[in-house]
Amino acid sequence: MAFNRNNRQKEEEFKDLGFGTNASSGGSRLLNQDGSFNIERRGLNDGFTNNIYHSLITMTWTKFLVLVMIFYIVSNLFFACLYLMSSGSFADGATGNTMLEKFLDAFFFSAQTITTVGYGKMSPVGIYSNVVAATESMFGLLGFAFATGLLYGRFSRPVAKIIYSQHAIVAPYKDSTGFMFRLANGRKNALIEIEAQVVLSYNTVINDKPTRTFKILDLERAKINFLFSSWTIVHPIDNESPFYKLTHKDLVDMEAEITILMKAFDDSFSQIVYSRSSYKAHEMVVGAKFANIHGKENNMPFVDLHRLDEFELVDLPS
Amino acid sequence: MAFNRNNRQKEEEFKDLGFGTNASSGGSRLLNQDGSFNIERRGLNDGFTNNIYHSLITMTWTKFLVLVMIFYIVSNLFFACLYLMSSGSFADGATGNTMLEKFLDAFFFSAQTITTVGYGKMSPVGIYSNVVAATESMFGLLGFAFATGLLYGRFSRPVAKIIYSQHAIVAPYKDSTGFMFRLANGRKNALIEIEAQVVLSYNTVINDKPTRTFKILDLERAKINFLFSSWTIVHPIDNESPFYKLTHKDLVDMEAEITILMKAFDDSFSQIVYSRSSYKAHEMVVGAKFANIHGKENNMPFVDLHRLDEFELVDLPS
Amino acid sequence: MAFNRNNRQKEEEFKDLGFGTNASSGGSRLLNQDGSFNIERRGLNDGFTNNIYHSLITMTWTKFLVLVMIFYIVSNLFFACLYLMSSGSFADGATGNTMLEKFLDAFFFSAQTITTVGYGKMSPVGIYSNVVAATESMFGLLGFAFATGLLYGRFSRPVAKIIYSQHAIVAPYKDSTGFMFRLANGRKNALIEIEAQVVLSYNTVINDKPTRTFKILDLERAKINFLFSSWTIVHPIDNESPFYKLTHKDLVDMEAEITILMKAFDDSFSQIVYSRSSYKAHEMVVGAKFANIHGKENNMPFVDLHRLDEFELVDLPS
Amino acid sequence: MAFNRNNRQKEEEFKDLGFGTNASSGGSRLLNQDGSFNIERRGLNDGFTNNIYHSLITMTWTKFLVLVMIFYIVSNLFFACLYLMSSGSFADGATGNTMLEKFLDAFFFSAQTITTVGYGKMSPVGIYSNVVAATESMFGLLGFAFATGLLYGRFSRPVAKIIYSQHAIVAPYKDSTGFMFRLANGRKNALIEIEAQVVLSYNTVINDKPTRTFKILDLERAKINFLFSSWTIVHPIDNESPFYKLTHKDLVDMEAEITILMKAFDDSFSQIVYSRSSYKAHEMVVGAKFANIHGKENNMPFVDLHRLDEFELVDLPS
Repeated sequence: MAFNRNNRQKEEEFKDLGFGTNASSGGSRLLNQDGSFNIERRGLNDGFTNNIYHSLITMTWTKFLVLVMIFYIVSNLFFACLYLMSSGSFADGATGNTMLEKFLDAFFFSAQTITTVGYGKMSPVGIYSNVVAATESMFGLLGFAFATGLLYGRFSRPVAKIIYSQHAIVAPYKDSTGFMFRLANGRKNALIEIEAQVVLSYNTVINDKPTRTFKILDLERAKINFLFSSWTIVHPIDNESPFYKLTHKDLVDMEAEITILMKAFDDSFSQIVYSRSSYKAHEMVVGAKFANIHGKENNMPFVDLHRLDEFELVDLPS
Repeated sequence: MAFNRNNRQKEEEFKDLGFGTNASSGGSRLLNQDGSFNIERRGLNDGFTNNIYHSLITMTWTKFLVLVMIFYIVSNLFFACLYLMSSGSFADGATGNTMLEKFLDAFFFSAQTITTVGYGKMSPVGIYSNVVAATESMFGLLGFAFATGLLYGRFSRPVAKIIYSQHAIVAPYKDSTGFMFRLANGRKNALIEIEAQVVLSYNTVINDKPTRTFKILDLERAKINFLFSSWTIVHPIDNESPFYKLTHKDLVDMEAEITILMKAFDDSFSQIVYSRSSYKAHEMVVGAKFANIHGKENNMPFVDLHRLDEFELVDLPS
Repeated sequence: MAFNRNNRQKEEEFKDLGFGTNASSGGSRLLNQDGSFNIERRGLNDGFTNNIYHSLITMTWTKFLVLVMIFYIVSNLFFACLYLMSSGSFADGATGNTMLEKFLDAFFFSAQTITTVGYGKMSPVGIYSNVVAATESMFGLLGFAFATGLLYGRFSRPVAKIIYSQHAIVAPYKDSTGFMFRLANGRKNALIEIEAQVVLSYNTVINDKPTRTFKILDLERAKINFLFSSWTIVHPIDNESPFYKLTHKDLVDMEAEITILMKAFDDSFSQIVYSRSSYKAHEMVVGAKFANIHGKENNMPFVDLHRLDEFELVDLPS
Repeated sequence: MAFNRNNRQKEEEFKDLGFGTNASSGGSRLLNQDGSFNIERRGLNDGFTNNIYHSLITMTWTKFLVLVMIFYIVSNLFFACLYLMSSGSFADGATGNTMLEKFLDAFFFSAQTITTVGYGKMSPVGIYSNVVAATESMFGLLGFAFATGLLYGRFSRPVAKIIYSQHAIVAPYKDSTGFMFRLANGRKNALIEIEAQVVLSYNTVINDKPTRTFKILDLERAKINFLFSSWTIVHPIDNESPFYKLTHKDLVDMEAEITILMKAFDDSFSQIVYSRSSYKAHEMVVGAKFANIHGKENNMPFVDLHRLDEFELVDLPS
């Protein structure tokens, strides 16, 4: 896709990543570690259907199932009332005498109609009840199938589950040092053509005004063919790196934050997936080396993802 | 994708964006602000199924639900007639005597069959009625599930809802000026890797023939990683810009129009989405500055989208 | 997508487009005008499920609906036989006496079970019939919903319907001539970011062996933002063009064929779509000019797609 | 997508393809010929829903159908028990006297409810049974529709079925030799814009430590427009090739493995698909030439895929 051919600014220099350029303060972060954004949007007034699908697809399972259940009960209550408003008996075989018994008859008749079970021991009598029943069974079919579509949509939604090491480290790298973090594919499938974009942001003062600056970090390798086990992403700290000559204390003082955007093709869902995360300065360990988590047992190679965050402290070349 | 490697013409010079090159007149526009096209296509004669899905998916909700309801009623009328054409009684338990009662029996029996409720108080009698009922229940299942598929398809269709500032402005930018407009993500999700392509078109006279000319505008930044809050798109008006030396009156006289194509990855639908819009010359304000809509409250950053179009008039550097 | 960076051969020089390099003869073509391939594949032995979906999704609507109907009838015949194999009566309320009546009872009972109408006038008796009925209703639900999925899949499958002019022409172009054809979007939606790749193939003799040679044609413009109305694709015939100095007779003698691959983003289906077509030498008109099909009525621009293929004969610059 | 512009290392030099850099031994391979990975991942602890969909979509058909059947039976057993726990009779028309008969009544009543057949000969009595039945029919609808969604999802999942020649060969190529293998599209559809990436890996000793090295192989042509019949992928063995001067025995000793990643657009599913495979050194034939499998019969070109792996031994230029 050739959109950005006319982009005048060089990639490394740009000022904004869609977060605005207000300086951070009080330790707030742009991206939370789970990839969600740390900004409130006021005046967002989308239409109903625009967001309802999004909410239904992303809410927790418990909430979703409770919602379905509530909707089922409320619908039955609603139609039960409609049946009870019938002038005579609403159904053959509805034998209840007390108000409660009548209500229960109507409620269970509604349930039998909305699910299209239709045992038939009770069956609608009169035009009014028949119209209500015909309408209810129609809405029942649409409603249930829609709930099912959502159920399936929730299951089949591709979500990359990339596990990031809890800490980023600065480790010896070639003759110098490198900023590194490690990630792994937390799902059983393979991720194909996985790419990383890593951005450092920090507070600076420009024209006496505190401003947030953003720098894309050069990577030793920004793309690999497969993410089946783990991948250590390395930004070499050379004299072109924005980390050059900075101490850990400098990074903390500047409220430095490293945001990560991963992009891959998910093999089981056949779709592009993204994952986001971030490290704040206090989640960095300067002078460390990730432990080797690859091994071999009975001639079968393995990787131990429990130890993804494992590192040992080492001296850095000065 | 490497299709356009053999593209001889430089991107900035091309003449046509798929709109033809007839000059505009009378203030008509190429793209409406909602992104729809302003041209009539005659002789478009697609097949039935090609467009029916498209129509069903994009019509309003009211229209869609009324259509489902009508289809349900018409189907029941149709099958009711078939039942009534039975030589004897079409069903056990159909007790109607008058013509109207018979029709109502047939209609409600049809509704019970098409939704597969099948209470059974009425049940088909004889080969003819049984064949009709078996056929109806089959078509009922297919038809309802199809309606449901559409229902779900309508909900799950990814639609980028990008809000554009109502006005584009020419504002001070670096040592000179820039053409700017502002946009925001109107939905609750995040848009990832969002790109802009902005094209200026205006009337010119080439070889004594009024012609519409198209120029892609260079942008300060044509792509950002996330559109979570707002983004101000800037075209620097330097000596390479087609706006260079033009006054607002020139733009109005040339029937200038700026068309916008946005492209992004929608995080909740996992799909690429596009958005289109346009500004005519009279929707531009020359000499203005967008208001700052970012702020912080209780250490939580916010952005106020109500004020997306807010600007103040300023003097431009001469 | 960065796959082809290591491609040593220049794009213009390659020999094969996936068609093999055997010379054509007797006027056969590589691609038919509807985009299908003109080669038989022997020894293709895919598994069952690999292709059944593909067939069900692409067959004609008539064939599809007949197939569903046949499947419904055959399933009912099958289960009817199972019910008839019951030792006693398979169902309460099955009152048939003759063999035919018994069969009809079983057949209609099966239909009522497979669609889950379950009127209940007939209901299964005994373990055997109950097990068959429980199994049938389960398979019925799965089967119908699957048919519905297919129905919906057929409707929602994105198919670009690009209309090509029936003839390609060689027309005056700038100071020289150009090879041109015209296309339009035959559906009501918009195609976005549409790209063309055009390849000329012809018979040559290499090392005394007749061989098919393939050349990608340079285009004046290989990509436009929108295909809403029509687009004339132009290959300038300059001294780098493989058409240079060739007459129409040469092209016919060499069995020249121009194959076209179009790629676009379909706005209503939110997916990438492709379209293929081809022109043989005898479908080319040398010395012609496409008619202008854009106009304006009541200040509303229009394009007349009926006249897509309309051209007038003109003299070419020598 | 412009992610990897800041990639400092040249493509050909990188060390890791997501497999780690431990040396291979004992003939183990990185990729199996069917494209699956040859590494065990320990500590992978995904959530339940993350993987259940993936498993259900990719298991064999037999396993899937058995699972559906088991789920159906277990659900009916569960609800049968609930009905039997009713204080009185759970249903009108449940006439069983012995424990077994009562159980069978409850089981079949459950089946009639969960599928929503609801014949009605048995129908629930009392609040308890009615509540259980209303709940069961609701879960039945959701459950079946979900099973159906999976069924459809399994059918409609795009899977490229690319057939690879069983052997890779080193054949005469131009003035020198080339590493070649052949592949074909094993499904009836067309694959569009198909690309190959081929990587050689082998054991080396770096700093006294046995290490796995990876080299991307340059290809004569890395992308073709269509894969309709077959494609021979060629890596020219020139002095820049990692194969240069190596004998077959060297390759076996170094445990050389060639891994292949193919990417294409699947025309019938309208999606990007990938395919993986690999050749170990012992699956290579040095000094061979693939047989011609294209031909023509009755003026109709054909390709014989049965003979995809057919080759004849030849002398190589020294």
